Amino acid sequence: MRVVVSGAAGFIGSHLTEALLARGDEVVGLDNLLTGRMKNLESFGDSSGLTMLTHDVIHPIQIEGAVDAVLHFASPASPPDYYAHPVATLDVGTAGTRTMLELAADKQARFMVASTSEVYGDPLEHPQTEAYWGNVNPVGPRSVYDEAKRCAEAYTMAYHRAGLDTRIVRIFNTYGERMRPNDGRAIPNFMSQALDGGEVTVYGAGSQTRSLCYVSDLIRGILLLLASDEHLPVNLGAQNEITMLQLAETIVGLVGGDARIGYRELPVDDPKQRLPDTTRARTILGWTAEVTLADGLLRTLDWFRSEVNAEGQGR
Amino acid sequence: MRVVVSGAAGFIGSHLTEALLARGDEVVGLDNLLTGRMKNLESFGDSSGLTMLTHDVIHPIQIEGAVDAVLHFASPASPPDYYAHPVATLDVGTAGTRTMLELAADKQARFMVASTSEVYGDPLEHPQTEAYWGNVNPVGPRSVYDEAKRCAEAYTMAYHRAGLDTRIVRIFNTYGERMRPNDGRAIPNFMSQALDGGEVTVYGAGSQTRSLCYVSDLIRGILLLLASDEHLPVNLGAQNEITMLQLAETIVGLVGGDARIGYRELPVDDPKQRLPDTTRARTILGWTAEVTLADGLLRTLDWFRSEVNAEGQGR
Repeated sequence: MRVVVSGAAGFIGSHLTEALLARGDEVVGLDNLLTGRMKNLESFGDSSGLTMLTHDVIHPIQIEGAVDAVLHFASPASPPDYYAHPVATLDVGTAGTRTMLELAADKQARFMVASTSEVYGDPLEHPQTEAYWGNVNPVGPRSVYDEAKRCAEAYTMAYHRAGLDTRIVRIFNTYGERMRPNDGRAIPNFMSQALDGGEVTVYGAGSQTRSLCYVSDLIRGILLLLASDEHLPVNLGAQNEITMLQLAETIVGLVGGDARIGYRELPVDDPKQRLPDTTRARTILGWTAEVTLADGLLRTLDWFRSEVNAEGQGR
Repeated sequence: MRVVVSGAAGFIGSHLTEALLARGDEVVGLDNLLTGRMKNLESFGDSSGLTMLTHDVIHPIQIEGAVDAVLHFASPASPPDYYAHPVATLDVGTAGTRTMLELAADKQARFMVASTSEVYGDPLEHPQTEAYWGNVNPVGPRSVYDEAKRCAEAYTMAYHRAGLDTRIVRIFNTYGERMRPNDGRAIPNFMSQALDGGEVTVYGAGSQTRSLCYVSDLIRGILLLLASDEHLPVNLGAQNEITMLQLAETIVGLVGGDARIGYRELPVDDPKQRLPDTTRARTILGWTAEVTLADGLLRTLDWFRSEVNAEGQGR
C-alpha cells in the first residue's frame, strides 16, 4: 500500500509511520513541525519507503501517483500545546481534515481520521461507549481541541455519506516513547519531574482517573481498524483505570530518587474520569490492549532516561 | 458605523442589513447566494448605504477602508439546506468564521457570530441556559450544522482570548418575511402547504415543541447585544413554546381553505423540545420577545400570500 500520513513526525504519527514501513508499505509523511519533531523519525527515517514533506495540511496539497490510504493524524494534542496554538488546533481539525478528505476523494483512497476521547469531554456516562454524544463546553478553553475533533468527525461523516470510504478512531490516553518530555501530559510530566528529582505535580487531589494505553497496542488497533469495514467511530484505549495520584506514585517508585508529590489547582474543564468501553473494538476488530501498565511504563522510562542523558550530553 | 455582514442576502442577514441601514449605518454585504437571494434586498437594496459583494467567505477577503463591526451570519440554516450542502455548511461555520474573524482582527472591529440553539442539540435540560453544554451527535446527519456552529463558537472564543472584541448570539427558532417557502422549516412549510390547499405535513406525532421568535424581535436583540459588552453567548428566542401539531393547526386555521394535517416519520436526531432560558438577554440587554405569535404569523402569512401571487403571475 501507499499511504499518506499527516502528523507523521508526531508522537502517534511516527509510531504509525514506523509500523506501516515495517510491514512494507510506502509512506508519504506530512508534518508542519509545530509540535512534531523530525528526530521522531530518526531511528527508521532512512528507510527508502518514506518520503517526508514539511507541509501544513490546512493548505491543499497534491500528491503525485496512486494513494491507497490517507491517514489524518496531525494536531497539537496536549492541553499546553493546544492552549499555545488555539487557532492552529482548530484549523488542523477543520481545514486540515478537509484537505486530507479531498486528497482521499481525489485518489479514491481510504481515509482515516484520528479522533479522540476528548469528543466525550467531561463525560456524564462511564465508561464511554461510541454511542455517547459527549459533554463538551463549546466556549471553554479546551474547546479549541474538543470541538475541532468533533467537527473533524462531522466532516468525515459528510464525506462518508457522499461515498468516501472512511474510518474514525477515537484515541484514549496513550503513552510511550517519543512523547515530548514537556508536552504537558501526565506521563511525560511525571517522568521528567521524577528524573529531575524535584516535585512531581498532581492537579487537584489527583483523584481524576485515566486509562493509559501503550502506543504499540494503539497502533495495532489502528491498523486493524484501517483494514476493517467499519465506518462508525471505534474507541481504542486501555482498561487499566488509574488515578493521577496512583500514577504519580508508581512513576516516583519506578524512578527512585528524591522526587516527592506536590499538588496544584485543577485546570478548567479537566475531565474527572475517562474510561473507554471497548466492546466495539473487541467484537469488530478482535482488539484489546495487551501491554501491562508496568511494562509500558518501564519501556517509556528507559526512553525518557536516554533522552535526558542525550540532552545532558548536548549541554 | 460601517458594518460588514456575511449572509446579507439570507433571511436573518437581510433583516439585519435592513435594520442597520435604517439606523444610518453603512453596510458591506457578503453572500455566496447558495441559500440567500438578492430579492431579499429588493425593498431597500437601492439604499446608497449598501454595497453587496457576491463572495464565499470560506475564502479570505479584503475590504477597503475602516470597518467598525463584522457580523458573520452566513450559513445554510434549515435541515434540507444543510443536508443538501453538508460540506459547504461545515466550511462556512469553520473556514468562514475564520475569514470573518481575521477581517475583524485586521480592522480592529467588533465581531459577532450567529450561533444557534442547535448547539444544544437534542437538549437534556429544559429550558436551555447558556451554561448548558448540549447534547449533539457528532456523527449524525445534523452534525454538519450543529458541530460547525459549535466550532464557530470555539473559534470566536479563541480570538476573544487573543484580544478580539467578540459577541456570540445563540439564535432560537425565528420566523418572518423572506423565509424561502421551500426551506424546510416548519412555518414556511406549513404556510406553503396550507396555501396550496393540500396536506400540511407534521413529523412524528407533532408533539415536539419549539418556541418561535418573530424576526423583528430577534434583530432588536442582536443590535442590543452588539452594543453591549457581553462576550459570552446570549440566547435570543421567544417563550411561546408550542407543539408542531398546534402550530400546524393554527396556520391551517389562519389560512382557511381545504388543507388538512398529515403525518410523516420523524427525522433522525430531531430535537424533541427546545425552549430558551432568556434570563441573560433580559438582565444584560433588557430584551424580551414582544411580538405575539398571532401577530407574527399574520404578518408572515401576508408576505407568503404575496409571494405565492407573484409566483403565480410569473408563470
